[in-house]
Amino acid sequence: MAKIVECIPNFSEGRNQEVIQGLVDTAKSVPGVTLLDYSPDESHNRTVVTLVGDEESIQEVAFQLVKYARDHIDMTKHEGGHPRMGATDVVPFVPIKDISMEECVEISKKVGKRIYDELDIPIFLYEESASAPHRKNLAKVRKGQFEGMPEKLKEEEWAPDFGERKIHPTAGITGVSARMPLVAFNVNLDTDNVDIAKKIAKVVRGSSGGFKYCKGIGLMLEDRNIAQVSMNMVNFEKLPLYRTFETIRFEAARYGVNIIGSEIIGLLPAKAMTDVAEYYLQVEDFDFNKQVIENHIIN
Amino acid sequence: MAKIVECIPNFSEGRNQEVIQGLVDTAKSVPGVTLLDYSPDESHNRTVVTLVGDEESIQEVAFQLVKYARDHIDMTKHEGGHPRMGATDVVPFVPIKDISMEECVEISKKVGKRIYDELDIPIFLYEESASAPHRKNLAKVRKGQFEGMPEKLKEEEWAPDFGERKIHPTAGITGVSARMPLVAFNVNLDTDNVDIAKKIAKVVRGSSGGFKYCKGIGLMLEDRNIAQVSMNMVNFEKLPLYRTFETIRFEAARYGVNIIGSEIIGLLPAKAMTDVAEYYLQVEDFDFNKQVIENHIIN
Repeated sequence: MAKIVECIPNFSEGRNQEVIQGLVDTAKSVPGVTLLDYSPDESHNRTVVTLVGDEESIQEVAFQLVKYARDHIDMTKHEGGHPRMGATDVVPFVPIKDISMEECVEISKKVGKRIYDELDIPIFLYEESASAPHRKNLAKVRKGQFEGMPEKLKEEEWAPDFGERKIHPTAGITGVSARMPLVAFNVNLDTDNVDIAKKIAKVVRGSSGGFKYCKGIGLMLEDRNIAQVSMNMVNFEKLPLYRTFETIRFEAARYGVNIIGSEIIGLLPAKAMTDVAEYYLQVEDFDFNKQVIENHIIN
Repeated sequence: MAKIVECIPNFSEGRNQEVIQGLVDTAKSVPGVTLLDYSPDESHNRTVVTLVGDEESIQEVAFQLVKYARDHIDMTKHEGGHPRMGATDVVPFVPIKDISMEECVEISKKVGKRIYDELDIPIFLYEESASAPHRKNLAKVRKGQFEGMPEKLKEEEWAPDFGERKIHPTAGITGVSARMPLVAFNVNLDTDNVDIAKKIAKVVRGSSGGFKYCKGIGLMLEDRNIAQVSMNMVNFEKLPLYRTFETIRFEAARYGVNIIGSEIIGLLPAKAMTDVAEYYLQVEDFDFNKQVIENHIIN
């Protein structure tokens, strides 16, 4: 079976249609790769591209995209609402099928090295690929952004993983990583009181003492006049979706509030859903790899 | 994307290791086909083979297996606990991915015709492929079994769909069909009273007034000393697993009995599980084809 890897590179261009189309064309140019989605954001001035492919093709397409971005995006002229440090800001690799996290870490290192060797863009490895604990968190790695990087790179603990202590003049520096698939999971409440959603978000998210693998905020869905707990589930194997869902249910009950429904935004691996079914149906000894027919289909 | 079809032929041999191995070798001989499982049963004297493959390969492997069975299984000498009408008793085709039930019906007809044309074995089409309502139900089609078929075929309404009104002398007659994937789903109760499981089975199964797409019996798991509702879910799209599960839960409550756990035996499509997760998480507008990453991987 082919090893399947997802790659979700983020580029610092969300306005210039010609450059966005160039990224799309480049994404489609590598055989063995499927372009699942691309979302340009004008106010962020950033485009997120979602790709899947086999182990080799995904490395090639990531490299070609970084090359295209280096040649068409000038960070000295970039402005936008989202923090960024390079023309290609980040390149995360995600294991999807028949491939381990360790193998994705290897892929991230190979691609990072090639980007520096051939394109002269220095590389920070982050998340699972990080070379030290203080480099795991992307927000910390990116702090200072493109403009602050020349100074930051001089600091003892911020030498790039590949490259010298100086940025590429127009393409900056790029973060490359391996990480678990991220599931965007929102839970809607039958209340127009956003404070309740905010209090519940605080209970479930890791940063304020909740579940380590959950990020979350409370917000209002203005069009429906309801409050929502909006979450990123960063490791659905260590924190299955049902666990935050049931926690939100019993926390909401304290305010006499019920769950109306939930939303899954974008893509997720089948296992994130089958794990939920396994829990609620109380299935004894379910084996995802063996029992789900699709897992036996040779790619 | 390749169209993926499952085929689960049943052969009237579960004891002779040489013949069983011959079936396995034949199953493995067709490129594009994966042998998922084979289960010989000595007391039934029957072997169930589970295969997946693309649209063309699955037809070829089914034909080759029927040919092998015709040449190596003599029904005039067969005895076993399971009803059967031919050396190859049944050949069901099941749509798995990017293929409709209608297309699987067409496949079943093409394979059925070829079996008669080239192997001289008459064919009954049943289930979704049936040519008349009284031929849908396999139990009715197979009634009379191998020994009674010569008489049955003379009856007005039991002409084969392909072939004349006489069986193959040693291979009998074969049923070919298209049907939905069948999910074997058992629910365990915290009671040693099998009558409770039997009463609940009667509530959920279609034949006694319950859910049309559920077959079920109550039985004892002797080794664990608990009662079980053992079910075949014959259309998980029209009757999702959670619906019988929740019905069993509230019916068991009448006896003060709880669900301990459940079992899924063998294979099932990912969608049968994601439908369950979607229900319990109350997901609004989930799109299985679009949102499950694996569905975008090109085969």
